[in-house]
Amino acid sequence: MVVRGAPAIGVAAAYGVALEALRLHHLPRAEFDQHLQLGFDVLAASRPTAVNLFWALNRMRACWQRHGAADTAVLSETLLREAQAIHSEDVQINLAMGAAGAALLPDGARVLTHCNAGALATAGHGTALGVIRSAVASGKRISVIADETRPFLQGARLTAWEMVQENIPVTLITDNMAGHMMARGEVDAVIVGTDRVAANGDVANKIGTYMVAVLAHRHGIPFYVACPLSTIDLQVARGEDIPIEERSSLEVTGFRDYQWAAAGVMVRNPSFDVTPAELVTALITEKGVVHRPDRDKLERLFSD
Amino acid sequence: MVVRGAPAIGVAAAYGVALEALRLHHLPRAEFDQHLQLGFDVLAASRPTAVNLFWALNRMRACWQRHGAADTAVLSETLLREAQAIHSEDVQINLAMGAAGAALLPDGARVLTHCNAGALATAGHGTALGVIRSAVASGKRISVIADETRPFLQGARLTAWEMVQENIPVTLITDNMAGHMMARGEVDAVIVGTDRVAANGDVANKIGTYMVAVLAHRHGIPFYVACPLSTIDLQVARGEDIPIEERSSLEVTGFRDYQWAAAGVMVRNPSFDVTPAELVTALITEKGVVHRPDRDKLERLFSD
Repeated sequence: MVVRGAPAIGVAAAYGVALEALRLHHLPRAEFDQHLQLGFDVLAASRPTAVNLFWALNRMRACWQRHGAADTAVLSETLLREAQAIHSEDVQINLAMGAAGAALLPDGARVLTHCNAGALATAGHGTALGVIRSAVASGKRISVIADETRPFLQGARLTAWEMVQENIPVTLITDNMAGHMMARGEVDAVIVGTDRVAANGDVANKIGTYMVAVLAHRHGIPFYVACPLSTIDLQVARGEDIPIEERSSLEVTGFRDYQWAAAGVMVRNPSFDVTPAELVTALITEKGVVHRPDRDKLERLFSD
Repeated sequence: MVVRGAPAIGVAAAYGVALEALRLHHLPRAEFDQHLQLGFDVLAASRPTAVNLFWALNRMRACWQRHGAADTAVLSETLLREAQAIHSEDVQINLAMGAAGAALLPDGARVLTHCNAGALATAGHGTALGVIRSAVASGKRISVIADETRPFLQGARLTAWEMVQENIPVTLITDNMAGHMMARGEVDAVIVGTDRVAANGDVANKIGTYMVAVLAHRHGIPFYVACPLSTIDLQVARGEDIPIEERSSLEVTGFRDYQWAAAGVMVRNPSFDVTPAELVTALITEKGVVHRPDRDKLERLFSD
């Protein structure tokens, strides 16, 4: 959780492979290949839900195989350049999503977001917050409502911080206030990021996203998901097939060293949930906006 | 917030009046009346949302007026006995609600609750948790899922503690996990308490209750509200007319002295929200279960 946010996890994994290759490049070729494979395995086991991790590792593996004939010094430099390419492409992709999504937000919009899908979750600019940044840059007056996002408090600690830095007005609420704000007519749109989108358009994202989507649907508020193509997993048919990480009970019984829950209580701590495609107004991708996502539309994104 | 929970607030206010009368009883009558009125005013200004406060104060005021001819020593003892009556009646009412509501819970039910409507929110037994206690006492195997209930964490600190004390299995989740649990089929019923029910059946309760109700509705899970008649306010037509207390921003930016939110963020902190009657499967009262509450059914409760 030192690195979190699906795109940032992908970029960090790519650099992890490159660093390991550079560290190993003096070894005989067989040992180099063996140890580098171990590096891939360790990285692949670090987080189960965000597909960008596997996407980035697959891309690095393909680079390794493509340049398998090169000596290890050249190969490791090539892997570093591939990681750097993934890094800089991520920023470009976020800027493209921002441009595509900014048009969806009306001037004056009060936009609710959950968790942190900002510059701190990507290589820069952000996915959901990138759309907000691009809308603000285009001259629109946007204000943000940030769910605090228990248990890890990414909204209170990261999203609020990013928005304060940029002088974008931001109001912090606890996660259970989102429905009240919507019922009072104080939310015009919702934008979130995602850790994995299934082939049918179901969206896995930070726990609590599903509740926000259901409430937005009830109140006729558009629910947008900023989603680079690297987060769409056509290999997974439906959201219920996406593995959901369960984390330590200590995150729920308190925050860090401050533990407040009654002793003896049992705990559940799923880190993600699944929002069915029917609740998604549109996916915002670097190839444009996909309204009412479904399998056909997602497959077309990759074939075009 | 040292005293919280609508019924406990009512009982504490009644004792507050009695204590003030006992403290003042040596004063000349005009001064006694003047200072006691001030005591009523201070207590009435302490919390806006829970109607039990005003219900209890009205009952104490009626006692004062009924016994206006008595000398202040006798009057203050009479007010103490009235507060003691409110206290012991509250326990009896909770036991009656428990008996009425227990029948609604099937053996083996996994029951989600929000905030704390237990013995710690009443004079004893509890409203929502009273129903669970009574179901367990009748031999049913009930397990509880407790929303932590940010920002004040009544679920993590009070509901979890009460259930652990009684060996009723209890699982703590963050508020934003309730939808995921329902989507996975892990919740059979929801029971909450309430701070005020409007004449049309709309329910004001701890912030986040509305989101739980919307999710329960989506998943076909019954949503029950344990509600003594003292919490029903026929003077308020609809939920949107119930005053909603807003509390300190420091509750949202952290918990007590541990402040984690980014500096400079704005905050909203409504303590309650309103669940429309259409989402309420039944009110559980000391006069029985009111399915699909509406104005007619609530008025009949008081006229019978």
